[in-house]
Amino acid sequence: MKAVIVGASGYTGGELLRLLLRHPSVEVVQVTSDSMAGKPVGRAHPNLRRATDLVFVPHAARQAADVTFLATPHGESMDAVPGLLASGGIVVDLSADYRLRDPAAYPRYYGREHPHPDLLASAVYGLPELHRDALRTADLIAVPGCIATAATLALHPLARSGLLTDAPVVVDAKSGSSASGREVAVAGSHAERSGVMRAYALTGHRHTAEIEQETGLRIALSCHAVDPVRGVLATCHAPTTRRIETKELWQAYRAAYGPEPFVRIVHESEGLFREPEPKWLAGTNYCEVGFAPDDRLPRVVALGALDNLVKGAAGNAVQSLNVRLGLPEATALDFLGLHPL
Amino acid sequence: MKAVIVGASGYTGGELLRLLLRHPSVEVVQVTSDSMAGKPVGRAHPNLRRATDLVFVPHAARQAADVTFLATPHGESMDAVPGLLASGGIVVDLSADYRLRDPAAYPRYYGREHPHPDLLASAVYGLPELHRDALRTADLIAVPGCIATAATLALHPLARSGLLTDAPVVVDAKSGSSASGREVAVAGSHAERSGVMRAYALTGHRHTAEIEQETGLRIALSCHAVDPVRGVLATCHAPTTRRIETKELWQAYRAAYGPEPFVRIVHESEGLFREPEPKWLAGTNYCEVGFAPDDRLPRVVALGALDNLVKGAAGNAVQSLNVRLGLPEATALDFLGLHPL
Amino acid sequence: MKAVIVGASGYTGGELLRLLLRHPSVEVVQVTSDSMAGKPVGRAHPNLRRATDLVFVPHAARQAADVTFLATPHGESMDAVPGLLASGGIVVDLSADYRLRDPAAYPRYYGREHPHPDLLASAVYGLPELHRDALRTADLIAVPGCIATAATLALHPLARSGLLTDAPVVVDAKSGSSASGREVAVAGSHAERSGVMRAYALTGHRHTAEIEQETGLRIALSCHAVDPVRGVLATCHAPTTRRIETKELWQAYRAAYGPEPFVRIVHESEGLFREPEPKWLAGTNYCEVGFAPDDRLPRVVALGALDNLVKGAAGNAVQSLNVRLGLPEATALDFLGLHPL
Amino acid sequence: MKAVIVGASGYTGGELLRLLLRHPSVEVVQVTSDSMAGKPVGRAHPNLRRATDLVFVPHAARQAADVTFLATPHGESMDAVPGLLASGGIVVDLSADYRLRDPAAYPRYYGREHPHPDLLASAVYGLPELHRDALRTADLIAVPGCIATAATLALHPLARSGLLTDAPVVVDAKSGSSASGREVAVAGSHAERSGVMRAYALTGHRHTAEIEQETGLRIALSCHAVDPVRGVLATCHAPTTRRIETKELWQAYRAAYGPEPFVRIVHESEGLFREPEPKWLAGTNYCEVGFAPDDRLPRVVALGALDNLVKGAAGNAVQSLNVRLGLPEATALDFLGLHPL
Repeated sequence: MKAVIVGASGYTGGELLRLLLRHPSVEVVQVTSDSMAGKPVGRAHPNLRRATDLVFVPHAARQAADVTFLATPHGESMDAVPGLLASGGIVVDLSADYRLRDPAAYPRYYGREHPHPDLLASAVYGLPELHRDALRTADLIAVPGCIATAATLALHPLARSGLLTDAPVVVDAKSGSSASGREVAVAGSHAERSGVMRAYALTGHRHTAEIEQETGLRIALSCHAVDPVRGVLATCHAPTTRRIETKELWQAYRAAYGPEPFVRIVHESEGLFREPEPKWLAGTNYCEVGFAPDDRLPRVVALGALDNLVKGAAGNAVQSLNVRLGLPEATALDFLGLHPL
Repeated sequence: MKAVIVGASGYTGGELLRLLLRHPSVEVVQVTSDSMAGKPVGRAHPNLRRATDLVFVPHAARQAADVTFLATPHGESMDAVPGLLASGGIVVDLSADYRLRDPAAYPRYYGREHPHPDLLASAVYGLPELHRDALRTADLIAVPGCIATAATLALHPLARSGLLTDAPVVVDAKSGSSASGREVAVAGSHAERSGVMRAYALTGHRHTAEIEQETGLRIALSCHAVDPVRGVLATCHAPTTRRIETKELWQAYRAAYGPEPFVRIVHESEGLFREPEPKWLAGTNYCEVGFAPDDRLPRVVALGALDNLVKGAAGNAVQSLNVRLGLPEATALDFLGLHPL
Repeated sequence: MKAVIVGASGYTGGELLRLLLRHPSVEVVQVTSDSMAGKPVGRAHPNLRRATDLVFVPHAARQAADVTFLATPHGESMDAVPGLLASGGIVVDLSADYRLRDPAAYPRYYGREHPHPDLLASAVYGLPELHRDALRTADLIAVPGCIATAATLALHPLARSGLLTDAPVVVDAKSGSSASGREVAVAGSHAERSGVMRAYALTGHRHTAEIEQETGLRIALSCHAVDPVRGVLATCHAPTTRRIETKELWQAYRAAYGPEPFVRIVHESEGLFREPEPKWLAGTNYCEVGFAPDDRLPRVVALGALDNLVKGAAGNAVQSLNVRLGLPEATALDFLGLHPL
Repeated sequence: MKAVIVGASGYTGGELLRLLLRHPSVEVVQVTSDSMAGKPVGRAHPNLRRATDLVFVPHAARQAADVTFLATPHGESMDAVPGLLASGGIVVDLSADYRLRDPAAYPRYYGREHPHPDLLASAVYGLPELHRDALRTADLIAVPGCIATAATLALHPLARSGLLTDAPVVVDAKSGSSASGREVAVAGSHAERSGVMRAYALTGHRHTAEIEQETGLRIALSCHAVDPVRGVLATCHAPTTRRIETKELWQAYRAAYGPEPFVRIVHESEGLFREPEPKWLAGTNYCEVGFAPDDRLPRVVALGALDNLVKGAAGNAVQSLNVRLGLPEATALDFLGLHPL
């Protein structure tokens, strides 16, 4: 199967390429980038030096392929997708452009009307844990946002448990610097960004809409930039109708994720590694989820941790494609992660 | 005025000494440490090399002084304070042992009955912004915890505003590694601690009791270890009775903190530095507070940022002592902080 | 082929296990650790949770195996190796105990006489780039130290080029925090270790002996601890007999490493990624080498970069075993590394 | 005394302002910045919010003053200085434009002829430890580069000791991210810059010329970018004519720096803090120097550590001005530094 990656000089595009270079059923035949056109892949991604002979081509030189990955900025996929679908291939869109089913959400969260609202219903939200069946036949896969993935997987077992009240769930998210993409900005310079605990979207973050869509809960999302390069931790403070026992939570999470290949339930009573933590998930497609009941106030704290560029983007895209192709889901995704890192 | 610092080889004790070496009205005459007894101060605190000739003495060699700072682990001050008070000096306790007025809180949060519950009423909580008048005559000053200080100062204007519902306020706290003190533990080794977003007390954190005492609110506190060495950010998610306007929040915060020398209200609509952030507060006694109203859900996000070892411990102790002594509050606390750092 | 890892709860042991869990020809049947005996592997290595059912057993319970990896502290292998060899399996020793061929070097650099000097000649230094042929039949493989590997691979092409004078080569090494192993020490706590540029062995570092042995050069090695968790960079300042041209250096390095699967020559004249850098090598078995001729003074600066736990330890061990077993050298070592990280 | 800071929105300019706001004899009357003209100082330097009412003015609006600090990029001072001197005030230039006495060095290291070579002889290199007497009457002070200061102070006692051979001294320098200034570049983004050990000027670094000028030694300087935001460590590998004893080195360094207020000789035989280290010097004007004799090869390793923005720039500028004005040298420079940080 031949693949093209559009926008391959960015961080998400680079991760797609890294994963697909080890994928036995996919051959990347073209990588596009206007800013890096004519240069070898290693010029943008030093980890891929010698691993491939691919050279970036301009977007305009893109060819048709069996599967096209769109790793372009938000807004650029909106218009590109219809043509790609018409040409018959599978489209895996890593931008936000087809994630939301409600057309009214685009003006609210992305500042523009969606030009192809009719297509929204045909897009499948690329979260295999929630939409595996639909993915098997999807031609347009909308890969979730990184914070949305962490929060949705953390909350999904609670959302369907009947344990929550209808008060909003506070999601306090922390994310690493690669989540801002490769655009250069003074706020992202090392001197300004190193060691911050920077609140950057205390209200109105775009991923709010995704999490609400996927969990059916009302979400109050606040986001922070913290120090590592990779990783998202979503700390979800969920009001419950009563005090909840740990045992009930184990049941809910096991019921939701028992056989999932890439969800790890982490809730240890001893040792150093008791809660989900992005640090040792870098490079992997795992999402760790966990929970802590409060014995004083009726609430549960749920946690979701992942690598924003893998399970939060490129890895999830490959997992979704594996589902679509009927391949083992872990194909090209078997990296176990590094400890310590 | 002669001062003794008990437990001066720890991080808080070292910061007390750093500040007091520049205090025109206080002379540190003795620094105690059992583990470092006989060694010069610079052996524990390399920044103080050549700044003082003091040598650590064992705790048992402690002399009476006009003011005694207790920078010892929780639990050790409980029994030491009555004797110190009886000898006539001022006691500034940086542990948690006299912070809570309700004796019942000690078994719940600290695992033991308080041996001198009668003294709790005479202790003054060392937060000048809330207890300035009482501090002027206090002989026992209980310096607040670092997370408690950040959250209390963030929430205080809201707590007295009448804008909040009676639902619990979620406080999602992030803190740097020096907040764990100088005890050596594998969880705190660089390889394990670097770049984490580690949830470590999702429920039941001890500072919950302080914040509830000082704000009168019900608090659901969850804590995380993040990367820098210094700093606390308390993100406080407060449910409100209705949508709140930014203007109302400015009024509430200005009314609470207008003339405060060490509270900076930060809420910028443009530029790089829009919200409170511990990064540029390292070494300073400032607490930055901020707020963000949600235009969709009835809630306000309030922020408090500080250096856990200064405004969160030693600096606040000095500020409280300055109040007690009738000195300008900023004495020995005029460091402006470093940018970038 | 059945393998045992002795000392598997340390960082090097954990990396061996991570790599071997993906090795098609090796089955890890036992992992030993006295401190973690009885506990599942994931308790020590959270990245391996769910990846294996192995439980640590005490060292004393070790069984014979086709290959035994010794990931124990320096000094412990000295006495263990003869018995292991006698039992007929391959021994891969990751400690320093059998790296040096000259028995006199042990008292000087390791403070004790070697108890089995006769065995030193039979050990093969586990650096395939220099000893591939000997490794094919080696029963005792002594895996090099991390700094030694980086410096030796950086200098090897120069050492045999005839371009150097006989003045000592200054090797200024920088290494990440995992290089100190998993022992807990206050010098390694995050608060003390974060962001350092700490000189820790300005003279007399043990790896000096290895680099001298392998390059035939006189080496003046000075070491520094710097911030990341993983990585070694060896900056080698080599006096030359005359001004050297870049072209000559390219020739020397290509001649030495042309077909090497895990040595990448990096010397770019433009772009962001011009020199060897450990940052994007984390988790990989690559060693990047580079060089810069000085146009003013007769010297060349040579660089070697690697992940101290992979090419500097566990990965190199697996590569050496692959050579020994006649397998493709990259077996279980195909991870490409992460960018950014 | 009235002062103007030209280029005050950069990092060096911000540090100058921070220090001078606490200087009892200097009043900053104007801060210039074209990019931030019209904005309050806190918009560029969040640590200075509320500490001053100054607003940036364009460079063209600069007024005459008793002292003018030039914190502009290299090349801009060359033409500005003559006019400033003619107007009668003191000029403190933090760029490289007047550091080198030999006009021929400018084309070599800075790519252009110096337009006013006649002025070079009248500029005084602003390193009080070497040029205190000349500074007392200097009207043009050329503040040294940060790496040059660390290396020069490390090597100065050796250079005049007669212990060194005439072979080049290798200076292997490590520096933090603020040393690159505030210009935005992708190489300096957090994702690319975090945790690097990046060789960036292995030969030909501009500070080579300064160190050679000030020490009289031949210098082979190679530079690396490492993780903290602040700090420089210069590791200087100096060939000696014979094996040197520690005692001789103590003598040489004490003879050079005995009464110096801002040079701290660090060479401890035990404890955690044995060598010079920039980590605890952040914000201070100290330079720590140290040394280690090799007992095997005839060489000494000398170390110099400082904060690149303080002793490496703004602090050194203020110290030099204090000398010029006949004030105590530590005026406005008494900050002791933070431990831990």
